[in-house]
Formats: sequence, structure tokens, C-alpha cells
Amino acid sequence: MSIRVGIVGFGNLGRGVETSIALQPDMELVGVFTRRDPAAVATGGAAVFALEALADYRDTIDVLVLCGGSKSDLPEQSPELAAQFTIVDGFDTHARIPEHFAAVDASARTAGTTAVISTGWDPGLFSINRLYGEAILPQGATYTFWGRGLSQGHSDALRRVPGVAGAVQYTIPASEAIERVRAGEQPELTTREKHDRQCFVVLEDGADAQEVREAIVTMPDYFEPYATTVTFITAEELARDHTGMPHGGFVIRSGESSPGVTQTVEYRLQLDSNPEFTSSVLVAYARAAARLAAAGDHGAKTPFDIAPGLLSPKTAAELRTELL
Amino acid sequence: MSIRVGIVGFGNLGRGVETSIALQPDMELVGVFTRRDPAAVATGGAAVFALEALADYRDTIDVLVLCGGSKSDLPEQSPELAAQFTIVDGFDTHARIPEHFAAVDASARTAGTTAVISTGWDPGLFSINRLYGEAILPQGATYTFWGRGLSQGHSDALRRVPGVAGAVQYTIPASEAIERVRAGEQPELTTREKHDRQCFVVLEDGADAQEVREAIVTMPDYFEPYATTVTFITAEELARDHTGMPHGGFVIRSGESSPGVTQTVEYRLQLDSNPEFTSSVLVAYARAAARLAAAGDHGAKTPFDIAPGLLSPKTAAELRTELL
Repeated sequence: MSIRVGIVGFGNLGRGVETSIALQPDMELVGVFTRRDPAAVATGGAAVFALEALADYRDTIDVLVLCGGSKSDLPEQSPELAAQFTIVDGFDTHARIPEHFAAVDASARTAGTTAVISTGWDPGLFSINRLYGEAILPQGATYTFWGRGLSQGHSDALRRVPGVAGAVQYTIPASEAIERVRAGEQPELTTREKHDRQCFVVLEDGADAQEVREAIVTMPDYFEPYATTVTFITAEELARDHTGMPHGGFVIRSGESSPGVTQTVEYRLQLDSNPEFTSSVLVAYARAAARLAAAGDHGAKTPFDIAPGLLSPKTAAELRTELL
Repeated sequence: MSIRVGIVGFGNLGRGVETSIALQPDMELVGVFTRRDPAAVATGGAAVFALEALADYRDTIDVLVLCGGSKSDLPEQSPELAAQFTIVDGFDTHARIPEHFAAVDASARTAGTTAVISTGWDPGLFSINRLYGEAILPQGATYTFWGRGLSQGHSDALRRVPGVAGAVQYTIPASEAIERVRAGEQPELTTREKHDRQCFVVLEDGADAQEVREAIVTMPDYFEPYATTVTFITAEELARDHTGMPHGGFVIRSGESSPGVTQTVEYRLQLDSNPEFTSSVLVAYARAAARLAAAGDHGAKTPFDIAPGLLSPKTAAELRTELL
């Protein structure tokens, strides 16, 4: 029997969830639920309904994947919808996870639903690797590097520099820092030492390249503390080569199992599309959420609470034979 | 309250478990149980008892870590001891996992114990990464590379070559193959194409280096099909530089979340000591086994059945705050 999924919200993430569900052998998409005019939402084929109609689908949806933003959508939607449906979200404001968990947990326990929050890759897969790393190697240090990835905030900062017509900024893990960590040195590294900044900039007509470069590399907080490179490109190159949303990074645990014996565990993501990968993770956790709900295991959960096997369409026996 | 652990068997793995327990904040070692004369077993400080006395410790041990071999020890010991104790083993004969699971499960269910089998890194952490990879990216290919690691079987083969006084062989993941996989090519690769062989050889007095090298690189199955390098070293260098048991490897999932959008997930281990790392994994799973047993969740489990949070000494709330 297929797992019947509904999508709430249809930006980049919702679009990715639609694509991902189509690749899963045991899931079907009931539809997209939106606050916008349903007629104005162009999906890849999925039906679109008004969000207000969602309650009518309680008997035909096993799990909702919430694709709104962490700033204002999910803090309201997750507890509210967990009172009616089993849900998955990708709430990613790290500092507010405890209060989000508490709100969703209270709602889900009262309603007898299951809610898996903060899935995705960070929080999510990266978090799991931080946990495995320190549980297995209690003596050591964990390093998280982000990138190569498009940074929206830093791209916006570039666009505010006078003389800039268009720009993107990629955050790059500093290769020297990674090599020191891989070598087991356990260095103390600040976020600044771990990351470089790569800027691709289109100049306005008549702008002075040298002045723009200087304004960028000396910008406090955003660029000055970092090794920053600025490459000038044409508007055509910007449109052609820089519309993807790549991201990724590393989690590295470097520890000693006994004095002088170094063990290094490294987890790395290289993502052509950050939203499509995040969506793919949400969809795998939607499977887990539906299974937990069916088994009567209610309340809020995080990726830390989900056994790996629950993510796979295969049975436990198949997994033991094929993948263990 | 500490988790009270017993070790069964005291080779390299048992030794590593003793060391690892000492690093864990919430575990205490009750003792080592051996088939040998206890007086002849030199631990790092742990008490040593005869294996026959184990039944006397049913009330003072929460979980046993079985450190015997997969060939003949564990197929007998795991089902037998699961009838009395909650256990963890590192059974690693992939093809026989289903029957091992069935035997241990029957025993543990009858006795009301919990038994986590096939922990370690392969099977174990590598398996989990294979599972996450294909659950999240159903369209793609998974690659497991082993090494750089000492291969006992290939080292033995070198030592049988006439003129060889001593030798070690390291299996090396082929860097060209790894780069193709990382680039998202999804190549079809045989085990041979994925690995190179690095030999360090001490010659017997009067042996002809050229003849020995030729005998090695043309040896069918073992070396002929592989890119093999032979480096001659002195007996002193062999003793000084090649007594460790390094190992490791990669699990790489390369998939497409939509046509042309490549997502790559890479998990890498670089281990100074294979047995010490494997032991560290067993010990983290011992914590999970003890917790599951205390919660009344009995029967055989594999790493696929264990939620990540169960491995950590931290509470669920601490994990959400500190690591998610």
C-alpha cells in the first residue's frame, strides 16, 4: 500500500518534494496545498488545493511534508498541522529547535500523530554524523565545514555595493583547514579560518572594477575577515553559469581511541541543488513518519530518534541481506 | 547509573573494548571472560574470569560485548549467550548475516534479552551509509571502497613467495576510480578497478629482487589483476613502520534528484587502528543494547534498527540542543 503524501507550500523545497516522491517506489502524491490562488501554482503535474481545504483530506493523506520557511511559517504550521496530520518538517533555526520541538510534541501527543522535525542535511544528516562521531570517539573534536555553496545573505551584500549590477557569492571550505583536520591535528579553528569567500560580480556600466573589488574585500564582517576572491563576469555568464543552488560541506570527527592512535570519520555532501537534496531527505523521513504513526509511536521526533531502516522502502530482512 | 559491561574474548578486539569503555562517561567494565587460563591473560587492568563462570554474573552485567571471531566463535556464542545476557557482536560474514540474525533473534526473544549483531564499520557504519544513500537518492549508484588498509590474506600470500623473509600488503582505493565516482559519472567498476595493491617486502639473504617482484606482480588472483607496487625494505623498517593495523575506506552514493542534477554523499574512514575503531563502535552499540533491554525492546537488532540517539550518553534534550 502506497504512502499518501501531501505537500504544504510550493517554493523550491515543495517543488523538490514533488520530484522526489515520483522517484520513490512506495509513495503517491495526493496534492499540493497552498495559501496562494491554486490556479496560479504551476506544479510538475500534482493537483493543487487551497490550504483551507486541507482538513477535508484527513482520511486520504498519511503524511504531510511542510515546505514553508523556518522564520515564520513552520513555527505556526508545524504545531497546528500536527494536531490533525502526521507531519515532517525541515525546521532549521538551530537555536530555536528546543522550543519548536516542545510545541510540536505537545500538539502531536494530544492528537495522536507523529511529527518528525528538523530533517534535511543541517540539521539532519550532518547532525547524525556529529552524534555518531562523538558517541564512538568520545575523545576528539568535531568540525563542520559548509560549502561549496551559494550564500544568499552574502550575495545580497554584494549586490548592495555601489557599481554592482549583479552578483553571487559561494562559501568554500578552506582546503588548508580541511587537510589539517584530516591529518588528525585537531586544530582550533574559527568559522573564518574554515571558510573562504568566492564572489562573481557583474559591474554596472562605467563602474570602476578596482574600487568595487576594494569595497567588497574590506566590507566588515561579511568579507574582510575572510580570504575573499572577486571575479568579474558578464551578465550573460551570471545568467548562464550561476543560477543553480549548489551546496554541501563536511562533518569531520577526529579522535583518538588510545594515546597516539588517530581515527578520522568524514562525511561529505556535494550537492548540485541544495533544495532538491533537502527535499529528498524530507521525503525519506516522510516514510519513517508514516510508519511510526502506523505503529502508534506518536509525538515529536528528530532524526536522532529515527532508526535508519525506517527510511528505506525495503523490509528489514531485505536490508539485512542486501545492504548490511 | 553506569552501564555494566562484560567482555567475552580478549584478542585485539577485546583489548580495544577495554580501552574504549575507559573513555565512556557512563560505563564500567565488570571484567573479561576468557576460554584461556585467566592467569595468562594480561589486560589493561580489567579483572579476568573463566568463561564458565559467566552465568554467575547475570545480575551484575547489563551487556556483554562479544569479541570472538565470525568464523567459529560468534555463530555459537551469540545465540548461546543471548539466552542469558543482552549482547553486542560484530559478526562480519556478510553472506551469513540472515542465518546469524535468525538464530540470535530466536534465542533473545525466548530469553527476553536484546542482541545487537553485526556492528562495527563494515558491516555497521558503512552499511548505514549505504542505506541512507539509496533511501534518499533512489536513482543512483553506491560504491564501497576499502583501504588504505592492511590485508592479512594478501600479506600471507606475499610471505609464501620464495625469497621473501617478511612482508605486508596494503589495499589502496584507486584514486582515479574515486575521482570518477565523486564527479558523478556513475561508472561501472569491478573490485579490481577500485583497488590498488601496495607491497612492502623484506628479502631473504641472497634473494633476487627482480625475480621476487616478478613473482609477486604476476601472481594470479592476488596481484596480477591489480595495479601492484612492490617496495623493498629492511627487516628493521618492517618492524618499525608496519606493525599498526590501519584500515578505512569510502562509501559513496552518487545519484540524481532530477535529470542532470547530481548529488554526491561520501562517507570516509581513515583508521590508524582497525580493531580499536571497531571496538569503539561495538561499545557505543553496547550502550544502545542496554537501553533497549531496559525499555523491554527485545530480540535481535542490527545497526539499521538502532536510532542514532541511543548511541550517545547525552539525553534526547541535550542532543537536540547541542548537536542537531
